[in-house]
Amino acid sequence: MSEFESRRLSELTGPLQNAESGPDGSVQSRRVFLARTSVLTLAIPGVGAALAACTPTGSKPADTTHRGAADTGRGRTPGTHNSDSRLDSTVLEAEHRPGTSATGAATAAGPNVAYHRYAPELPPLPTGATGATGTTGTTQRIHFHAREAPVRISDDTVVAAWTFEGDVPGPIVHTRVGDTVEFTLTNDGDIPHSMDFHAAQIDPKEAFRSVVKGQSLTFTFKPRFAGAFMYHCGTAPVLMHIGSGMFGAICVSPREPLAPARDYVLVQNELYLADTANGTRASDYQKMLKMMPDIVCFNGRPNQYVKDPIRVKVGDRVRFWVVSAGPSHPCNFHVVGEQFDTVYLGAPPASAIRGVQTFTVAPGGGMIFELMCDIPGEFPFVNHGFGHGQKGAIGLLVVEP
Amino acid sequence: MSEFESRRLSELTGPLQNAESGPDGSVQSRRVFLARTSVLTLAIPGVGAALAACTPTGSKPADTTHRGAADTGRGRTPGTHNSDSRLDSTVLEAEHRPGTSATGAATAAGPNVAYHRYAPELPPLPTGATGATGTTGTTQRIHFHAREAPVRISDDTVVAAWTFEGDVPGPIVHTRVGDTVEFTLTNDGDIPHSMDFHAAQIDPKEAFRSVVKGQSLTFTFKPRFAGAFMYHCGTAPVLMHIGSGMFGAICVSPREPLAPARDYVLVQNELYLADTANGTRASDYQKMLKMMPDIVCFNGRPNQYVKDPIRVKVGDRVRFWVVSAGPSHPCNFHVVGEQFDTVYLGAPPASAIRGVQTFTVAPGGGMIFELMCDIPGEFPFVNHGFGHGQKGAIGLLVVEP
Amino acid sequence: MSEFESRRLSELTGPLQNAESGPDGSVQSRRVFLARTSVLTLAIPGVGAALAACTPTGSKPADTTHRGAADTGRGRTPGTHNSDSRLDSTVLEAEHRPGTSATGAATAAGPNVAYHRYAPELPPLPTGATGATGTTGTTQRIHFHAREAPVRISDDTVVAAWTFEGDVPGPIVHTRVGDTVEFTLTNDGDIPHSMDFHAAQIDPKEAFRSVVKGQSLTFTFKPRFAGAFMYHCGTAPVLMHIGSGMFGAICVSPREPLAPARDYVLVQNELYLADTANGTRASDYQKMLKMMPDIVCFNGRPNQYVKDPIRVKVGDRVRFWVVSAGPSHPCNFHVVGEQFDTVYLGAPPASAIRGVQTFTVAPGGGMIFELMCDIPGEFPFVNHGFGHGQKGAIGLLVVEP
Repeated sequence: MSEFESRRLSELTGPLQNAESGPDGSVQSRRVFLARTSVLTLAIPGVGAALAACTPTGSKPADTTHRGAADTGRGRTPGTHNSDSRLDSTVLEAEHRPGTSATGAATAAGPNVAYHRYAPELPPLPTGATGATGTTGTTQRIHFHAREAPVRISDDTVVAAWTFEGDVPGPIVHTRVGDTVEFTLTNDGDIPHSMDFHAAQIDPKEAFRSVVKGQSLTFTFKPRFAGAFMYHCGTAPVLMHIGSGMFGAICVSPREPLAPARDYVLVQNELYLADTANGTRASDYQKMLKMMPDIVCFNGRPNQYVKDPIRVKVGDRVRFWVVSAGPSHPCNFHVVGEQFDTVYLGAPPASAIRGVQTFTVAPGGGMIFELMCDIPGEFPFVNHGFGHGQKGAIGLLVVEP
Repeated sequence: MSEFESRRLSELTGPLQNAESGPDGSVQSRRVFLARTSVLTLAIPGVGAALAACTPTGSKPADTTHRGAADTGRGRTPGTHNSDSRLDSTVLEAEHRPGTSATGAATAAGPNVAYHRYAPELPPLPTGATGATGTTGTTQRIHFHAREAPVRISDDTVVAAWTFEGDVPGPIVHTRVGDTVEFTLTNDGDIPHSMDFHAAQIDPKEAFRSVVKGQSLTFTFKPRFAGAFMYHCGTAPVLMHIGSGMFGAICVSPREPLAPARDYVLVQNELYLADTANGTRASDYQKMLKMMPDIVCFNGRPNQYVKDPIRVKVGDRVRFWVVSAGPSHPCNFHVVGEQFDTVYLGAPPASAIRGVQTFTVAPGGGMIFELMCDIPGEFPFVNHGFGHGQKGAIGLLVVEP
Repeated sequence: MSEFESRRLSELTGPLQNAESGPDGSVQSRRVFLARTSVLTLAIPGVGAALAACTPTGSKPADTTHRGAADTGRGRTPGTHNSDSRLDSTVLEAEHRPGTSATGAATAAGPNVAYHRYAPELPPLPTGATGATGTTGTTQRIHFHAREAPVRISDDTVVAAWTFEGDVPGPIVHTRVGDTVEFTLTNDGDIPHSMDFHAAQIDPKEAFRSVVKGQSLTFTFKPRFAGAFMYHCGTAPVLMHIGSGMFGAICVSPREPLAPARDYVLVQNELYLADTANGTRASDYQKMLKMMPDIVCFNGRPNQYVKDPIRVKVGDRVRFWVVSAGPSHPCNFHVVGEQFDTVYLGAPPASAIRGVQTFTVAPGGGMIFELMCDIPGEFPFVNHGFGHGQKGAIGLLVVEP
C-alpha cells in the first residue's frame, strides 16, 4: 500500500469519527458517503485493486448452496465501465437516504416482501460433488451474488439489506477440512462488494478484493481447520457492509466425523435501523458507529425460533455452530435449563472445554457448542448479556419425548 | 408457545426499544410497565404457564442456606387469587415510581435498613444432610422466598431491590456433582418471580416458571457438572429482574474434592439507579436498556472488600468462584500483584488453563480462579475493564504472614 | 487500609459517577481533579503509602530497554518536597485544561513533535546481562522514567500523554521465566505515578505504590509464568493513567524456548481526546467514563502498520504477543486471510487452542497468537469488533515470497 493510499484512509476515518462526536449526529450527504466507500475500497488493504482492476472470470460454475431466495439467472457478462459515474447514478437515485443501506434495489417492493424463517439446519456435505474426488477430498463450487434487496425480518419490519443471495444471513456453506471450495462472487449491487471467508488461508489482497457491479471474481481454497467460521463482505467500511447484512457462516467439518448429532447454525447479528421510508427501514451507519443496536438476533430475524422453534428428540445430541457476526458485539451463548457438555474454543476435536453454562463468542469469531438432550422440555437459547440479548437474540429448542 | 404469545412478545420488545431511542429518555407509566411484565410472563418460554397455572406444593422443606437476612417465618399458605387485580393494586400503591423496582415492600423503611457485609466464604457442603444419603449423594433442601426489600449497599445508598431471601446477591448455594437439590421458591413479592439455576438440567417451562404472590413451586435436580454457576429470576423482562437484584451463585464441587483451599464466591453485578425518593433509590429499567451502569461491584456492594478485606495466610491456596451476573457486562477478573495458577474455563478438574493475569467471565457465566499465596501483602482484585470496573468492582485480598 | 482511607475512596468514586450522569457532561475544575488524584493515591490499596513515604533508592541501574525516545540523562537526585504545593503549581500552570492529561510538560512544544513508528519487534533477551547468571537465570535492570510528554500519533494529531520513557506504549520488556527483573521507576512528571507489572507476583502495596515528582522506587521480581503481560501505571484514577498513555507490554518467554518465530508485540489501547488547545489534544477523563473512544489502535498510533507494514517471508512462523491495555475494551484479534495455528490462552506451551479465526483478549489481559506464513500476500490484522476496531485497530502483515 502506498503512502498516498494510506493517507486517504486516514482522511476517511477522521471525518467519520468527527461526525460521531458531533453534537447533532448529522450524517453526511449520500454523495460523500458513497465517494468515501469507493475511495476506501482502494485504500483498505486486501481490496486495493478492486475498482481499478477487477478481474472477471470466464468460468460458469454451478451454484450448489443457494437457499431461501429464488435464483433467477444473473449470469450477465461482466464488462468494463466507469465505476465512478455508476456510483454517481446510485447517488442520484437514492439521494434521500444518506448514510444508509437504502441503495439500488434494496428498497424496491419492500413492503410486499414475504417473511420466511431462516432454516438453521447445517446442510449435508455435498456428496455428489461437482468436482474431482481425490485423496484430499472433493471440490465444491459455490456461486454467490451480492445483491441489495429488501428482507422481511418480522411481521412489521422490512429492512433494506445488502445481501449474499438475497437473504440475511447468506447461505450456510458446509465443507470439510482438506476439501476444495471454488467460490465465485458476482456483484449485482450498485456499490462494490467482496467476500472474506474466515475459513480460508489465502491472500486477501487478491481473493477478497472488491467487485463492482456486473463483474465477478473467483478464488479457490482448502480449509485447514474445522470449526464454525464467519464469512462477510470486507469492502470498506466493513462496519457498514456487515451491519447491512453481508455475512454468514461457513462450517468446516473435520475429516474424522464428529459424533452424530443434530447440527444447527446460529449467526448472531446486530441491526441498526434508520426511520422508515416507503415502508422499508434502512441500516443506519451513524447508529452503527454508536454501537447501540435496535435488534440483536440469531439468523437475521428477532425471536424467529420462538415463533417457530428448533425441534429435536430426547436422546439427540445437539451441536450448535455459533458465529458472532457483530459487527460489534459478542454473543454470550447460553441454553436455559441445559448445560454444554462440550464447547470447542478452536478446531474440533481439540480445543474443547466441558460442562459450560455460558461462553463468549467474539465478534468475528465462531465456536461449536454441544449438548445432550437427556430430558424433554422447552429450552430457550439466548445471548445472556441481556441488555443486547433481549433485543431478539432468543430462540427455543424443543426436545420432544 | 402459541403464535399469539410470541406476537405479544414482539409487541413488547418493540416499544421498549423505541423508548430507548427516544430523545428524552422518557419512561412509560408504571401501569404500562407492570402490564407488560405480566404479559411477558406469559409470553417468555419457560415461564409461560406461570400466572395461569402456578402449582403450589404442600411440602414444608427446611431452609438450609439462609444467610445474611433475618428469616421470619413466611410459610403462608398459597391460595388462589386474581393476579391481574393484585398487580393493579401494586400499581396504585407505587404510581409515582414508573419503570423502576420501587414496588411493594421494596422501599418500606428503606432509610432505616442497616448495612451488612456480604459474607463471601463458600459455605461447607451440608454434611448432616436433610435427606437420604445414597450412592449418588445426599439431598439438600433449599427454600428461598422472593421478596421485594430495601438493601443498604453503602453508607449513603439504599436500593429498592428485588431479592431472594432479602439480600443481594441471594444466598450462596453449595452442592456437589450427583447430589440432589430440592428447591422451593415462595413468592412474597407483589409481582411474579421465578428461579433459573444454571447448574440444573431440567425443563425450564415447568421448573423455572413464574410464581405469583403467595404461591410456591418446588423442583428437584442433580448437578452434572462442577463449577461456579449463576442463578437468577427468569421472569420477563429478565433484564429488569436480574438488574434489580434477583441473582446469586450456586457452586458445585466435583465428587473428587479439589485441592484444599480458602474458597470465596464473588458475584459481579451492575446497578442502574433511579433518583432518590423517600431516601431509597430504585433500579431503573430505562437505564438498564442503555447499559451504562452507575455501579459495578462484587456481591452487591461497591468496594465492600476494600472497607473490610478478605483475609488469608501465606501458604493458602485461594479459590475464587467468580460469577458474572450482569445483567449485561462481563467481568475481566484480575488480582493486582498476583497471577492465577489455574483458571477453570469449564468444569474442574478439566478445562483448565495456567498462568493467567486476567480472564473474561461472560455475563451469565462463571469460572473458577485459583492462586497460591506465596507472599504476604495487600492484593486488590478488580474488573480490569476500568470504565466499568472502577465503579466499585474492587476488593482487597490481604495475605497475612 | 484504614477505614478513613476507604471512606475517602468512596467519596471520590461517588462524585465522578454523578458527573457522568449529569445532564451537561460538565467537568470539574482542574484543581478538584488533581486534588482527587492525590487523595486517591493515598486511598487506593497498593499505592497507599506513596505521597507520604515514597522511598527513593540510591542505586543507579543501567537502562537496558529504552526504545523510541531519546534518553537524555535524567538521573536527578530524588529529594524531599511538599508534594501538595507542587501539585498546586501544576494546577496553576494548566488551569485551562480541567479533567484532562494536559499537565506539566505534556503539551510543551507539542506541535513540533515528530511522528515515529512504534517498533513492534520483540527485543531479544538480554544476553550480555547486567547482573549475575545463575541456575535460575540472569538479572535484568530496567529504569523507566514516568514523564508527561506530547506524542505524535498521526500526521495531524499530537496527544498530551502521560508516559513511561516518553512514548506510548512504554518500551517493550522481554524477560524469561525464572530470570530476575530489577525495576526502577523515577517520576519526572508533575503528578504521582506508579508501575504495576502483571508479570510480577509481589506485594503491590509496596512495589506498585505511587512515586511523586523527582523521586524513585526500585523493586525486584522473578516472573513465574510465560506469556504476554500488561504493565501500567496503577495510580488512581487508573482509568485516567492508562487512558492517558501509561501502559506497555512485558513479554515473558518460557525457559524452554518456543519454536523459532518472528515475534511481534501489539498493544491495543483506546484514546479519548479533548478538543485541541495549542495544537495538542489532551486525554479527556469525562470521555473515558463514557467509554466511547475516539481512537482504538495498536501500539499507540491509528493504522500505523497500514502505512508501514510488518514484513515477513513465506515460511516464517509469526508470533503476536497481544496485550489489551484498554482501559475499558477488549481486543477481538483476527488476521484477514489467515488463521491462528495456536492461541495460548494462558502460559505457553500449555493452555493452547488450535485453528482459531478470532479470539478475545480481555482488557488488562494478554495472549499469544501464532500463525504459519505458508503463502505470500497482504494480511490485515484487526480488532474484528468493528465499531471500535475501525477506529484505527488495523495493521498489515505483508508476507513476501
